[in-house]
Amino acid sequence: MNERYDELKSRLAAVHDLRRAQEVLFWDQTVMMPPKGSPVRSAQLTTLDRIAHDLFVSDEIGWLLEELAPYEDGLDYDSDEASLIRTTRRDWQKSRRVPSELAAEMVGAAAEAHDVWAKARQENDFALFLPHLERAVELKRRYIDCFDDYDEPYDVLLDDYEPGMKTAEVRAVFDDLKRELVPLIAEVGSVEGDDAFMSGPWPTDAQHAFSLRVIERFGYDPRFFRLDVTVHPFAASSGTQDIRLTTRYSPEDITSIFTAMHECGHGLYEHGVSTSLERTPLCHGVSSALHESQSRLWENIVGRSRPFWNHFYPALQEAFPGVLGDVEQERWYRAINRVKPSYIRVDADEATYNLHIILRFELEQEIFAGTVALADLPEAWNARFEEYLGIPVPNDSLGVLQDVHWSGGGFGYFPTYSLGNIISVQIWERALADLPDLHDGFEQGEFGQLHDWLRENLYSLGRKFTPQETLERVVGGPIDAAPYVRYLTDKLTALTPA
Amino acid sequence: MNERYDELKSRLAAVHDLRRAQEVLFWDQTVMMPPKGSPVRSAQLTTLDRIAHDLFVSDEIGWLLEELAPYEDGLDYDSDEASLIRTTRRDWQKSRRVPSELAAEMVGAAAEAHDVWAKARQENDFALFLPHLERAVELKRRYIDCFDDYDEPYDVLLDDYEPGMKTAEVRAVFDDLKRELVPLIAEVGSVEGDDAFMSGPWPTDAQHAFSLRVIERFGYDPRFFRLDVTVHPFAASSGTQDIRLTTRYSPEDITSIFTAMHECGHGLYEHGVSTSLERTPLCHGVSSALHESQSRLWENIVGRSRPFWNHFYPALQEAFPGVLGDVEQERWYRAINRVKPSYIRVDADEATYNLHIILRFELEQEIFAGTVALADLPEAWNARFEEYLGIPVPNDSLGVLQDVHWSGGGFGYFPTYSLGNIISVQIWERALADLPDLHDGFEQGEFGQLHDWLRENLYSLGRKFTPQETLERVVGGPIDAAPYVRYLTDKLTALTPA
Repeated sequence: MNERYDELKSRLAAVHDLRRAQEVLFWDQTVMMPPKGSPVRSAQLTTLDRIAHDLFVSDEIGWLLEELAPYEDGLDYDSDEASLIRTTRRDWQKSRRVPSELAAEMVGAAAEAHDVWAKARQENDFALFLPHLERAVELKRRYIDCFDDYDEPYDVLLDDYEPGMKTAEVRAVFDDLKRELVPLIAEVGSVEGDDAFMSGPWPTDAQHAFSLRVIERFGYDPRFFRLDVTVHPFAASSGTQDIRLTTRYSPEDITSIFTAMHECGHGLYEHGVSTSLERTPLCHGVSSALHESQSRLWENIVGRSRPFWNHFYPALQEAFPGVLGDVEQERWYRAINRVKPSYIRVDADEATYNLHIILRFELEQEIFAGTVALADLPEAWNARFEEYLGIPVPNDSLGVLQDVHWSGGGFGYFPTYSLGNIISVQIWERALADLPDLHDGFEQGEFGQLHDWLRENLYSLGRKFTPQETLERVVGGPIDAAPYVRYLTDKLTALTPA
Repeated sequence: MNERYDELKSRLAAVHDLRRAQEVLFWDQTVMMPPKGSPVRSAQLTTLDRIAHDLFVSDEIGWLLEELAPYEDGLDYDSDEASLIRTTRRDWQKSRRVPSELAAEMVGAAAEAHDVWAKARQENDFALFLPHLERAVELKRRYIDCFDDYDEPYDVLLDDYEPGMKTAEVRAVFDDLKRELVPLIAEVGSVEGDDAFMSGPWPTDAQHAFSLRVIERFGYDPRFFRLDVTVHPFAASSGTQDIRLTTRYSPEDITSIFTAMHECGHGLYEHGVSTSLERTPLCHGVSSALHESQSRLWENIVGRSRPFWNHFYPALQEAFPGVLGDVEQERWYRAINRVKPSYIRVDADEATYNLHIILRFELEQEIFAGTVALADLPEAWNARFEEYLGIPVPNDSLGVLQDVHWSGGGFGYFPTYSLGNIISVQIWERALADLPDLHDGFEQGEFGQLHDWLRENLYSLGRKFTPQETLERVVGGPIDAAPYVRYLTDKLTALTPA
C-alpha cells in the first residue's frame, strides 16, 4: 500500500512543481521580465497550466485515491498521509466536474475582458464593459451548473476561495458586522485631524529601508525572502524556503510600510508551512480568508497598534526627518488609523474597508440570484454605497468599475477580504490569551513570540485540514464577527474626542 | 495534412514552452532566488525536464513525423515547415535512442560529482575526483553505445553540441590551427609591456554603466533585454523578445566590459531568430560553435579592435579617470590584446585560449580511445600543456582540475569554443566583403550595419538548417582555420616591436 501512496505522492509532486513554476514565472513576468516578453510568457503559462491540469485530473490519480481508501481509514486523521489523501480527493473530485473546454473558455474570456475593463474604467464607460461582464457571468453560471452539492448557487463561487464555506454563513457574519459597523463609522468617521503631513514627500529609498527594517523583525530573512517593486503588490512563493514579496513606493504616501507588513504576513504563512509538506498540494495557506487574516494581522493588529509605534516611531522620525520632524507620535498614530469614507476599496481605512466588501458580496449574490440586471449594476452600486458609507458616488470609475476581479470572473473572492479581517482578530485574541505579554514585546521591537505561536498553531498546518477545521483548531470555534467588532470599537472610540 | 502539421507544431510548442520555462527558472535560481530555495528549485527543474522529455519522445510525435513525410516532400526545403519536420525528426530519433534510465543516471551522477570536483579543485586532490571521473566516462561510454552511426566514438559526444560535426574534421582544423599558433604564440608571447594599471581599482558602478553603454550600441534594448550580476556569467532567454544577459564585476579587473560584449553576442543571436520560429524547437542558435562564434565576434573582433577603441577610448577614460587618466590609448589597446601563456582557460587571452582547448580535445579523444588511463590524466595534461604553452603546470588545481565540464559528463563541448573562434572570423570576413566600410562605422560608434547583416544572414535562420548548412549559407563554404590564423597573425605581429 505504501507503494501506491508513494506513487500518488510522486504524481502530485510533479503537478505541484508545475504549479510552483507557474508562480515563479508569473512573479518574473510582473517583476523582472523585459516588457516585450509578455506574449510568449503568457503562452508558456497557459501550457504549464494545461499540463498541470491534465496530470491532476487523470484517471490514474482517481484510481490511486480509490485504492488508497482502506489505507487512509487505518491512518490517524491528523497525519500528513491521511490529510494528503483526503484533501487531494476533494480537489480531484472538484476538478473533474469542470470540462476542460469550459475552463479554457473562462481563461480566454478573462484575458479578453481584462483590457476592455481597463479601458472602460479609464474612460468611465460601463456600457463598454457590460458585454464582457455578461459573458463572465454567463460562463460562471455554466460553471455553477457543473456542481449539484450546494445550498445556493453562490456557494459554488465561494468554495473556490474558501472551501466548504456557505453563503448563508457569510451572510450571517456580514449582517452582524454591518449592523455594528455602519453606526460606528458614522460616529468615528466624522473625527477630523490635521493629516496634511501625510502627503510627504517621503523619499522612496528611506521607505524601502524602513520597510525592510520592520519586516526583518517580523521574520523576513534574505536567505528565504526577497522584496521587490511592482505595480500591484502581491506575495508569491516557489516553496517554503523561497518567498517573494512585492511592494511599491510613491513619494506622495507612506502606504508602502503597511504594504510590506501586509505582504510579509502572506509570506510568513507560506514560509511557515511544515517542511514535511513541501512539494505536496498541502504546501500552501489553507484559504483566501485565512491567508488574508495573516496579512491583516501583521499589517493592522500589529502594524497599526500603539505598542508597535511606541517602538518604531523614533526610528520612523529619523528616517523621514523632513516630514515627521515636528509631528508627534500621537498625531501620526491617529493619522494612520483615521476612519474616513472614500470611494476606492484598496485605499480604504481598516474600518470602512469592510463596507466596500459587504456591498460587493451583496451585489454578487443578487447577480447570481438574478435579482439585479447587469445593466442596472451602476445604479444598484451607487445607491447601496451611499447608504453604507454616506457619500454619493461621482462616477462609475470610482464606483462599479474600480475593481479588476469581475473582468476575470472572480466572483466569490471579495468576501474573503473581510472574512480575513474578522478571523485575524479571533486568532489574535487566542494568541494573546496564550501569551499575555505580547504587547510588551512589541514595545521592545520583539515579534518572534507571536511569529512562533502563529507558525506552530496555524502556518505549519498548511492545507492539511479544511479552513473550518483549521480555524477550529486555532481558535476553538467557528468564524465569529464579535471579536472583530469589539476590537474596532475599542480602538476607534478611543480616538474620538472625550 | 495541415491538421497533422498543426498537431505536431502544437505538441512541439508545449515541449518548447517547458524548455523555456526551465531556462527562466535556471536564470532565476542563479540570479534572483533566495539561497535556501535551491533544493526545491532543483526538484522543479528535474520535473520540468522529465515532462518535456516524455512529451517529446512520445510515439505520437513519431507517428506524426512519419505521416508528414509526404507533405514534407512537397515543401520547399528552406520553408519553416519543412525545416521544422526535418530538424524535429533528427532530434526525435536521437532522443529515442537514449533510455530514460541512462539519462536520469547521468543527471544524478553529474549532480553528485559536481560538489566532489569543487572540493578536489580547492584541495588540489585529483585522487578524490578520480572515481567520479571514472563513473562519468563509463556512463558516456554507455551513452555512445546507444548509437551506431558514427565514424569514431567521439563523434557521438561532439554531436550533442555540434550536430553533424565529425571528430576527423575537428582534428584537421585544429591541426592546422596548432601548427600555426604554437610558433606564433612563442613569438608574440614574449612581448612585454607595462600593464600594471590593469589591476585597477575599477569602480564597479562605472563598469556597469560603461558595459551598458557599449552593448546598447550593439543592439541591447531594455524592451527585450536585461543585464544582471551572477557568479559565472551566461546568457539565457525565454523567447526572442526576452533575453537575459549576466555578468560580474570586480574592482581588480575590467574584464566585465568584454564579458558584457560576449554575452550580448549570444543574446543578439537568440534575439535575432525569426519570430516566425517562436515557440518551436527551431527558435535557438543552431549549435554551440555557431553561438560561440557570435559571442567571440562581438567580444574580440569588434570589442578588441582599434576602430572600436578609437571611438570608445575617450569615454572609457572619462569613466575611469583614476586608472586611465594617464594611460594613452595605444597602451590600453596593447594591454587588452596582450598574449601571455597562463594556466587558467577562462582567463586566457584571445590567442592562447585555443591551445587550452586543443589540449582538452586531444585528451578527451584519448580518454575515449582508451589510450590514456584516467589515473594518468594529470601527467598527460601537464606534459602536453608545457609542450604547447611553454610553461610548467604547478599543480592540478591550475591544471587538469580547473574546469567543471568533465564532472558533469560534458565531454565534446570544449572544442566548440575554438571552433567558434575560427568561425567568427570566417563570418566576419564575409560581412566585411559585403560591407567594406564596417570599420568606419565602428569609429563612429555605429554597429547597426553589422548587427543587421548578422541578423539577416545568420541569426534569423535559427535551427532551420544543420550547423554545416548554416555555415555554408553564411560564408559559402565549410569550416576553415585559415582566416582565423591570418586574422590573429596580422593583429598580433603588428603588436611586436618592429
